Amino acid sequence: MTGLGNTRLGKTGLGIGLIGTGYMGKCHALAWNAVAPVFGDVARPNLAMLAEASQDLAERKARELGFARATGDWRSLVTDPAVDVVSITTPNAFHPEMAIAALEAGKHVWCEKPMATKLADAERMLEAARTSGKVAVLGYNYIQNPIIRLIRRLLDEGQIGEVNHVRIEMDEDFMADPEELFYWKSEASSGHGALDDFGVHPLSLIWTLLGGVRRVFGHMAKPYADRPIKGGARRAVETYDIATTLIELENGASGIIALNRSAWGRKGRIFVQLFGSKGTIVYDQERMNEVQIYTTDMPKDRQGFRTILASPLHAPYDKFIPAPGHGLGFNELKIIECHALIRRIDGEAATIIDFEGGIRIERIVDAVARSAHEERWIEVESGEERRAA
Amino acid sequence: MTGLGNTRLGKTGLGIGLIGTGYMGKCHALAWNAVAPVFGDVARPNLAMLAEASQDLAERKARELGFARATGDWRSLVTDPAVDVVSITTPNAFHPEMAIAALEAGKHVWCEKPMATKLADAERMLEAARTSGKVAVLGYNYIQNPIIRLIRRLLDEGQIGEVNHVRIEMDEDFMADPEELFYWKSEASSGHGALDDFGVHPLSLIWTLLGGVRRVFGHMAKPYADRPIKGGARRAVETYDIATTLIELENGASGIIALNRSAWGRKGRIFVQLFGSKGTIVYDQERMNEVQIYTTDMPKDRQGFRTILASPLHAPYDKFIPAPGHGLGFNELKIIECHALIRRIDGEAATIIDFEGGIRIERIVDAVARSAHEERWIEVESGEERRAA
Amino acid sequence: MTGLGNTRLGKTGLGIGLIGTGYMGKCHALAWNAVAPVFGDVARPNLAMLAEASQDLAERKARELGFARATGDWRSLVTDPAVDVVSITTPNAFHPEMAIAALEAGKHVWCEKPMATKLADAERMLEAARTSGKVAVLGYNYIQNPIIRLIRRLLDEGQIGEVNHVRIEMDEDFMADPEELFYWKSEASSGHGALDDFGVHPLSLIWTLLGGVRRVFGHMAKPYADRPIKGGARRAVETYDIATTLIELENGASGIIALNRSAWGRKGRIFVQLFGSKGTIVYDQERMNEVQIYTTDMPKDRQGFRTILASPLHAPYDKFIPAPGHGLGFNELKIIECHALIRRIDGEAATIIDFEGGIRIERIVDAVARSAHEERWIEVESGEERRAA
Amino acid sequence: MTGLGNTRLGKTGLGIGLIGTGYMGKCHALAWNAVAPVFGDVARPNLAMLAEASQDLAERKARELGFARATGDWRSLVTDPAVDVVSITTPNAFHPEMAIAALEAGKHVWCEKPMATKLADAERMLEAARTSGKVAVLGYNYIQNPIIRLIRRLLDEGQIGEVNHVRIEMDEDFMADPEELFYWKSEASSGHGALDDFGVHPLSLIWTLLGGVRRVFGHMAKPYADRPIKGGARRAVETYDIATTLIELENGASGIIALNRSAWGRKGRIFVQLFGSKGTIVYDQERMNEVQIYTTDMPKDRQGFRTILASPLHAPYDKFIPAPGHGLGFNELKIIECHALIRRIDGEAATIIDFEGGIRIERIVDAVARSAHEERWIEVESGEERRAA
Repeated sequence: MTGLGNTRLGKTGLGIGLIGTGYMGKCHALAWNAVAPVFGDVARPNLAMLAEASQDLAERKARELGFARATGDWRSLVTDPAVDVVSITTPNAFHPEMAIAALEAGKHVWCEKPMATKLADAERMLEAARTSGKVAVLGYNYIQNPIIRLIRRLLDEGQIGEVNHVRIEMDEDFMADPEELFYWKSEASSGHGALDDFGVHPLSLIWTLLGGVRRVFGHMAKPYADRPIKGGARRAVETYDIATTLIELENGASGIIALNRSAWGRKGRIFVQLFGSKGTIVYDQERMNEVQIYTTDMPKDRQGFRTILASPLHAPYDKFIPAPGHGLGFNELKIIECHALIRRIDGEAATIIDFEGGIRIERIVDAVARSAHEERWIEVESGEERRAA
Repeated sequence: MTGLGNTRLGKTGLGIGLIGTGYMGKCHALAWNAVAPVFGDVARPNLAMLAEASQDLAERKARELGFARATGDWRSLVTDPAVDVVSITTPNAFHPEMAIAALEAGKHVWCEKPMATKLADAERMLEAARTSGKVAVLGYNYIQNPIIRLIRRLLDEGQIGEVNHVRIEMDEDFMADPEELFYWKSEASSGHGALDDFGVHPLSLIWTLLGGVRRVFGHMAKPYADRPIKGGARRAVETYDIATTLIELENGASGIIALNRSAWGRKGRIFVQLFGSKGTIVYDQERMNEVQIYTTDMPKDRQGFRTILASPLHAPYDKFIPAPGHGLGFNELKIIECHALIRRIDGEAATIIDFEGGIRIERIVDAVARSAHEERWIEVESGEERRAA
Repeated sequence: MTGLGNTRLGKTGLGIGLIGTGYMGKCHALAWNAVAPVFGDVARPNLAMLAEASQDLAERKARELGFARATGDWRSLVTDPAVDVVSITTPNAFHPEMAIAALEAGKHVWCEKPMATKLADAERMLEAARTSGKVAVLGYNYIQNPIIRLIRRLLDEGQIGEVNHVRIEMDEDFMADPEELFYWKSEASSGHGALDDFGVHPLSLIWTLLGGVRRVFGHMAKPYADRPIKGGARRAVETYDIATTLIELENGASGIIALNRSAWGRKGRIFVQLFGSKGTIVYDQERMNEVQIYTTDMPKDRQGFRTILASPLHAPYDKFIPAPGHGLGFNELKIIECHALIRRIDGEAATIIDFEGGIRIERIVDAVARSAHEERWIEVESGEERRAA
Repeated sequence: MTGLGNTRLGKTGLGIGLIGTGYMGKCHALAWNAVAPVFGDVARPNLAMLAEASQDLAERKARELGFARATGDWRSLVTDPAVDVVSITTPNAFHPEMAIAALEAGKHVWCEKPMATKLADAERMLEAARTSGKVAVLGYNYIQNPIIRLIRRLLDEGQIGEVNHVRIEMDEDFMADPEELFYWKSEASSGHGALDDFGVHPLSLIWTLLGGVRRVFGHMAKPYADRPIKGGARRAVETYDIATTLIELENGASGIIALNRSAWGRKGRIFVQLFGSKGTIVYDQERMNEVQIYTTDMPKDRQGFRTILASPLHAPYDKFIPAPGHGLGFNELKIIECHALIRRIDGEAATIIDFEGGIRIERIVDAVARSAHEERWIEVESGEERRAA
């Protein structure tokens, strides 16, 4: 029997710093814990340090999530020599400052989406990433689903021909109750509403599956004019829980993006319909282990939508489960993303949205908002033009 | 044993004249044949006369469909004394002339949708109907589905509160194959494309369930630039197989209408999502005997979309089948419509879209087309304003 | 313009006598009314006479359903010279007497399933049919669904290879409420319960799709020991609302038939799963316009259950609707059955279960009941052996 | 900033020994890695030692899965002082020897299902567990699904009244291809076939949700008589890929269990239908984040099956994700099971199947096999009777 020190493995693995321990912070922590045993081809990360708003909270969370050290000062984390990669999972407004500081300290950055609350800040983040030469990626985990990768493969193979029409809906119901107390998501300072809260997800799918967006026409709506505040009075809602957008893609396809965070009964629905010259693909995030495809390569009287269940044949599902149809969970997409990040850091190709891709998404969101305000189609500025400017 | 002459029944029933025996002509004929035995509360109609393009064809079809006499001249039909109601099921371009002639001859009119290919013609038809005082209704059979009537009842009861967002998609795939020969549906003379071919159906549902549309922003797209013609060359497509529209309803709700007649795999899909302040309703025409509803009147941990199957509790399903879950068919909706028409003629209330309602739908289609052309929101002219003009 | 007498058509069409005007009686009447206009290739039947329990009721129903004459004495109907075919839709206990009388009078018979409440009676009916040489068929309309015909074609083509395992469930909920008053369906005189009430439908599908049953092992259960009677007391239930059966088919396949008429929420479910050496077929009667098929003739990573929607490519759907995905209704299956009957009378091949097939089904029901009683596997007597005896 | 040694956490957590690193071995390892950060209320386990067939393999796997030490000799693991709990994930035939050795060494045991390949061995394991006083549980992870826990709660609350009929199907297709090479699963030495390979899962659900089974009648079938071996010849199949069983539960309900590991297209289907006096519950493991329930506590015309999506309201989903409808994966059920095991070790109540429950399941499997052989109903021996013997 031989002793195998965790130490040695710890030494070779990347040093991880985590800022934030909310929904996504925990999700990052779970991914860092699991990525080595799941994939078996990367060194076990060294969970070096965790930062939270206070030292006490940081220590408690470090203990829970398995981090070695804790701090109440995120700045000390981004400069800590034991840290190679910084996971940023704080509220969006903090992303620019933290990401730029981390990049300037020579760390790789894994920042939750969206990049920032203002396009200008996102542009600064991109600039910092370019200057640093470090890997700077975003937490767009929906695109990591093996089923989404299968869709991409099916598209690349031409199984549904040329895609000419796209519809993506994203709906949840956490803002659906008009009698729930007014909170910050209804304040203008939080952004536009569903558009920036949700819109980046459909756009990340479009970007991953189909490429760029040429122009947009947006509309935003408030299902409820006001909401109650404590004491019984009501306060006017300042954000738009509903956003609908007509789009034209760079590949010529037309489409629609519809977003509603007041959609009773929808919990995590992202409904995607891709219409092509030879078939159609339909996907629903609420049943994330399935995809439907209609193809025309069989006699007409037996064509139909085919439901493909996720299986080990759809990498990297096989790294999780060797049996088909057993199903991955939402959190496991973050483990795949974490693996992609490590591969990028190792200089290998990996599907993940970096700041170059992220800025494309942010620019579209910005264009939609302006379009809704100005009631006209807006051309989305491409990165090239912008860089040329 | 007593003899009961068909004759006597024939005398008391309405005299029917049918013009056209294509898809919808046969559907009308089946409805006129079935309405009395299905409902049991109306006299058996007298299938008096059938008109087709030629005398030969008319005679053959009369024999098949059970009509007593046949003619190759529709004008003789609309003035025939044995005819009380004229079913008009010819191509849309013929509707105005025929409907106006029938109304002027003092006949009731049951005309297939849409009213006409030009808004001005539809306005003339409405004028003729008003002048005649006769019943003039349109063939919008989707709204006759007992499940749609259930939806209306659920809405009226406030089961999902105030509807604040609407999405309706209508998709079929009869234009989906880019290699199918160019035919008249791709010619500009046939209309805009999906917009007028399909759009009236979603609009008939909106009109029936939610009321009027305030303003629209449309977009139309061609999935295929050209299609083959005989001999191997290709001809440029002039119509738009795809149309997407942002809408605002008079009740304040926002929404989307998306139409695609090149949607591979969709056969008769009309997908309706109605989001309200207390719940959501979802309906798919391809599963027309079901509706899904999400309501919030139960503990949160057991809320979910509930699939209600059509049953005898949803009138007039009971007139067809006394057992639940057995399912009506598309053609049977026309029998229900036929019954509603007879009730209207008898001076009773009945849900059916008459020319007054139909013109509302035609005006919206017109507004969407202009909007797509002018790339701006267009207010839909209400009947009142228009009449004032 | 030429007059085309209904008379002439009436003369050439079959003369119809209908006994019974309940659920199935109306369904037969609708079919006789519609079969000519729907199919266009048969002469319009002459709805000659209707029999009901009383002359008054018969006259009222004749008026509603379009029959020329009415009688309170079914015996006068079966011998009436104007009647060529007798539709028998009375309670099952009356079938033998009526069918035998009609056959002896030289009429064709269209009798609702099951043949009789006792196997011996069914055997007598078969004997009468053989002696008469007339067409004697049963009302097994589920097998007339174009989707079931598609399934049969797929099986014949070997699309799923050799079928080696079958599961059929039939569930409704009209007996599900334990507090509903005791009525005749809970009396022993009505039969075994779900077994004979329902079981013939799954067996008709097995017979149509797969052939004979070799042996059975049955079990029957009472979900409720008693039910209330008027006055507040309760009466012991004598029939079995649940029946489960293990089967072995003549083709070697194993299987299960599960029946439950106390299955809350199931309205018209007949759920069929056919497992083969190369694929699987799944069908649900509650979505009767769809079938799912899984085949293995494509790369493994994109195999999945394919949902085929009924379309004009699945004859005789095309006789009803020229567009796919629009859906037939339950009642329309009876029209197809009616057409098959007319073809049989005309000496043509047609898929319909005649008394020869029907007796096979009755024998299996009988075997299951005996098996449940004796708690042992029972071999189903084949017709050949029986005839030899 | 304060240093928090992993060491300290390591000291307080349980010491884990893992035997086996196949499908379930990795699944256990992932669970031990994740249980502390997911739940946040248990000390981080100390992954002390891993055993595999050889020292080399053990070391490689220890490195991948995060274990500190490795051994090629499982006996040294079960006696190692750093080990508190032994995860046994080897082929079933090894379970008895390993589990008994571990229990005798004073370790807690977490053994994958089923207990053993022979009932007598399972009984010895139970005896060892009783003698040791240690926690001895089985890996029945399907019952850990928050949705299954919800079903249990719904049943306990009487939402569907008294359950009177149960159907459970378990189908996969890894044995569906008749042309795949003969391998050990077709050898008699591997057991009966689908019955013991699959049957324990449905039985674990019945045991968890409804309690004991009174008697059974089984049948087993071979879809394929033989399979190819290398060289082109074929070898007779000795096991049964299909098993069907009629059951009666101790609570009086009747039911069916149907198992098929040659079911093309089914990947991880466990389809559960629970029929009660006031409603019905339906669950499909392939959509493990959903359950359907039909209840009768609303007006009849709007009753329907309601699909409830897993959410944080269904503990312990909330420990994984704070948002509803995002979905857990199959592997995450093992993390929940791991947490339940730790709670048991800590002396707290937790839903998990221990050896006392496991033996009930094994006895039913044994009874079904005997029943199929003897072609008669077999009463399942209750633990009490058996102990008395």
